[in-house]
Amino acid sequence: MTTASAGPDRGDFAKDNYSDSLFPREIKSTLTHLRDIGEQHVDSSVKVRAWIQNTQMQGKKMAFVELREEGSWSIQGLVVAGTDVSREIVKWVGSLNLESFVSVEATVKRPLGLVKSCYVTNYELHLSKVFCKAPAPEVLGLSLVAVNKAAICVDEEEVVDSIENLTVKVLVVPGASLATYISNPVIYKRTPVAQAISDVRIAVRKLFTKYIDVRDFNLFEPPCLIGTASEGGTEVFTLPYFGKRAYLVQSVQFYKQIEIAGGRKKVYSIGPSFRAENSNTWRHLTEFFVIDLETKIENHYHKVIYLLEDLLLYIFRQLEVHVYLKEVRISFANSQKLLRKEGPIEFRNVSDDKDISTPQEKTDFYIINKFLESARPFYAIPDPENPAVTNTFDFFIRSQEILSSGQRIYYPVVLEDRIRAKGIDPSSLGIKEYLDIFKSAGVPLYSGRGIGLDRVVAWYLALPTVHLAAYYPRTPKRLLL
Amino acid sequence: MTTASAGPDRGDFAKDNYSDSLFPREIKSTLTHLRDIGEQHVDSSVKVRAWIQNTQMQGKKMAFVELREEGSWSIQGLVVAGTDVSREIVKWVGSLNLESFVSVEATVKRPLGLVKSCYVTNYELHLSKVFCKAPAPEVLGLSLVAVNKAAICVDEEEVVDSIENLTVKVLVVPGASLATYISNPVIYKRTPVAQAISDVRIAVRKLFTKYIDVRDFNLFEPPCLIGTASEGGTEVFTLPYFGKRAYLVQSVQFYKQIEIAGGRKKVYSIGPSFRAENSNTWRHLTEFFVIDLETKIENHYHKVIYLLEDLLLYIFRQLEVHVYLKEVRISFANSQKLLRKEGPIEFRNVSDDKDISTPQEKTDFYIINKFLESARPFYAIPDPENPAVTNTFDFFIRSQEILSSGQRIYYPVVLEDRIRAKGIDPSSLGIKEYLDIFKSAGVPLYSGRGIGLDRVVAWYLALPTVHLAAYYPRTPKRLLL
Repeated sequence: MTTASAGPDRGDFAKDNYSDSLFPREIKSTLTHLRDIGEQHVDSSVKVRAWIQNTQMQGKKMAFVELREEGSWSIQGLVVAGTDVSREIVKWVGSLNLESFVSVEATVKRPLGLVKSCYVTNYELHLSKVFCKAPAPEVLGLSLVAVNKAAICVDEEEVVDSIENLTVKVLVVPGASLATYISNPVIYKRTPVAQAISDVRIAVRKLFTKYIDVRDFNLFEPPCLIGTASEGGTEVFTLPYFGKRAYLVQSVQFYKQIEIAGGRKKVYSIGPSFRAENSNTWRHLTEFFVIDLETKIENHYHKVIYLLEDLLLYIFRQLEVHVYLKEVRISFANSQKLLRKEGPIEFRNVSDDKDISTPQEKTDFYIINKFLESARPFYAIPDPENPAVTNTFDFFIRSQEILSSGQRIYYPVVLEDRIRAKGIDPSSLGIKEYLDIFKSAGVPLYSGRGIGLDRVVAWYLALPTVHLAAYYPRTPKRLLL
Repeated sequence: MTTASAGPDRGDFAKDNYSDSLFPREIKSTLTHLRDIGEQHVDSSVKVRAWIQNTQMQGKKMAFVELREEGSWSIQGLVVAGTDVSREIVKWVGSLNLESFVSVEATVKRPLGLVKSCYVTNYELHLSKVFCKAPAPEVLGLSLVAVNKAAICVDEEEVVDSIENLTVKVLVVPGASLATYISNPVIYKRTPVAQAISDVRIAVRKLFTKYIDVRDFNLFEPPCLIGTASEGGTEVFTLPYFGKRAYLVQSVQFYKQIEIAGGRKKVYSIGPSFRAENSNTWRHLTEFFVIDLETKIENHYHKVIYLLEDLLLYIFRQLEVHVYLKEVRISFANSQKLLRKEGPIEFRNVSDDKDISTPQEKTDFYIINKFLESARPFYAIPDPENPAVTNTFDFFIRSQEILSSGQRIYYPVVLEDRIRAKGIDPSSLGIKEYLDIFKSAGVPLYSGRGIGLDRVVAWYLALPTVHLAAYYPRTPKRLLL
């Protein structure tokens, strides 16, 4: 089979100790992760697999090479010509393209002083073998040095691309625009901040599941492809479907109520919803991730408010104490400069050591209850003690709505009356299907709501745009990366 | 506000003890679930919320009423005219439409003999108050008696609808066709078998997550809307997207490899994929649910086979021992007749007490390794010791493929050579984007694969069609329910 051209000079006495090829020699030492390196490894030989974050020749006999694993973990490596290490390997390592992936054999040593440029400051690696497993190109689309800086511009309309396609050896590199960061995911995702945002997002999902599972909610899976626009909604994506029209789901409400009508007491789902809205703002996505739940109301709908409030406070507090967030916190502390520049107005003067990751609960997380009947849709149940208002409520983080909910009318005759009272034809597309569920068999009273995962993560972390909270943000202009 | 018409005769001395309305009187007794009723409740008053499964008048002074909660839980209720219970309430309860949802106050009693028609056999409820919270129509689209029987026909093309729109009081009811069951989800989902299938499906998801989370895999969220057909695939759904064309994701491979290239060691996702294939068979869905994972290979790709094998065996074995599955097992034991009729050939003669829920591991779950180079796509890595075969493998349950996987080529030069060798243009749509990831920065070697959740559940349970394993099966002809 074809293999890539090997770099080393074949006359070199240490030629078996370095190469780039699809199937290089195996290294026998124990594979060790940077986060695990400790006193027990000093003067021992280890195998490390990592990206090359930086290289620097020091004369012809020595090369420095920064190696990086997942997250912030980086360590200083040295290649020094001597008995086992040839000058050729030193030169070869010094010329490796940044962000290439290598497998190395090295002896762990204590450095002369703390290595301030790396995350691991109290150990360094003296490399004896270096195999390039996956080479990066000579010129990267975006350098890691640039993407680790604050973005020049967060407005995605205004792309500032002046620094793209720079070689990464330039020492002073400005940042790029946010759009450039997101368009270069392979590099952007290698930054500690990008990985920390993802870690928080997944922690929110897992904490939600943990909280809700012990309360006997049933996970279910609503479809994305549907045969009628959700609740007669506009701004829906449509597509041809075997001679018919299909729609992308905007709200899973219809399917949640089939689940409840179908005999479940409490249900939840986690998945995408879609909205064909041509809004190019920092708050909008065309494909967004919704955590949705629905529960029978045993007594009063206020129990649902308490449940949702308790759930969100549980998530925020657990994010604080969760052990693995130590690393996320460090990543964010490293990025205070980014927040000062890009975060909301209240963070423009934040100091490097201030913890900004948690909303102040009393002011930054609040609930509004009992909206006016005229301000809510036909399905909102009127307050039996004051029909001018409805049993509805909204939740906010940092003044941004994250969920809008309430108790829904389940009694078929009343529901049809309300639909007419709002001037809607009960036989119109989407409305008829909604009403039919309640007519088809006894459907008990219930309430619940979707929580936008993208917005919860963005506003919790005080990010400048919801696009930074999504894995692959979908906007009217962004569809591939 | 408008309320529904109340049923009771207002001259009745017990008129406050029954009604149907949106806001009925509250019952003060403690809300009790049928699964929790025990000796401590005998002669005590409880509140129960349930569906009416059956009613039968016994003269003018007594009515039997079967009440059902989630899953199989049902209990016999009696309304007997006496000091506190009027003849009017007896008559009213006896005339309630089946599958209405009620809230009742009752005294728990020991029945004269075991109640064989209900799941709870050793207690019964003597009702004193009955409020109809959500009424069912007089005529259901499909009766629960019918849907609890084996389907007449599993071929969805051939709809046997003769029994639809029967009133439910008919004593001998034939089954309906599977298409009718799925088209009446509110009734179908109330059956113990439908809920048991969902329980197994969700257990598979949760066991997968539990297994993979402790092994340091990172959950991520690939998009559904993409800007180019996955890996240049055909049979893709396309839709207009703000003046451009969008596609629905067929495979998350592209995004998995961005995650690995972006610095993660191990990733997984759980979500929908789409295929616009006009296949109307028991094995096909147009929207299907995929559990996908990808991991760096530290040494040999066989480790990935061992991981996937160990993962699936863990799931199958845990499903066996998992405590809550006791109820699922009982549901399935109750439905052996259904399996005899609809299951694969080997279950045609299964006895009622045989446990058929587990595949025999040695014969029903197996792996095929090292496929010929000519039989696999361009990205399959050749075996370094025998380039005629590739480092690829397939997994099977009951002779049906559930995953097809292998190690992928990551070295850009080699990958481009292989694309050309297979007669594909490396600059063609989808292929170029795939190749560009590997060229953009060093991407380490990795392997992994998607596992079709629908198929794993269907073949594990030996269901006659994958449509029964999905929450809302999507086929060329099925798009709303």
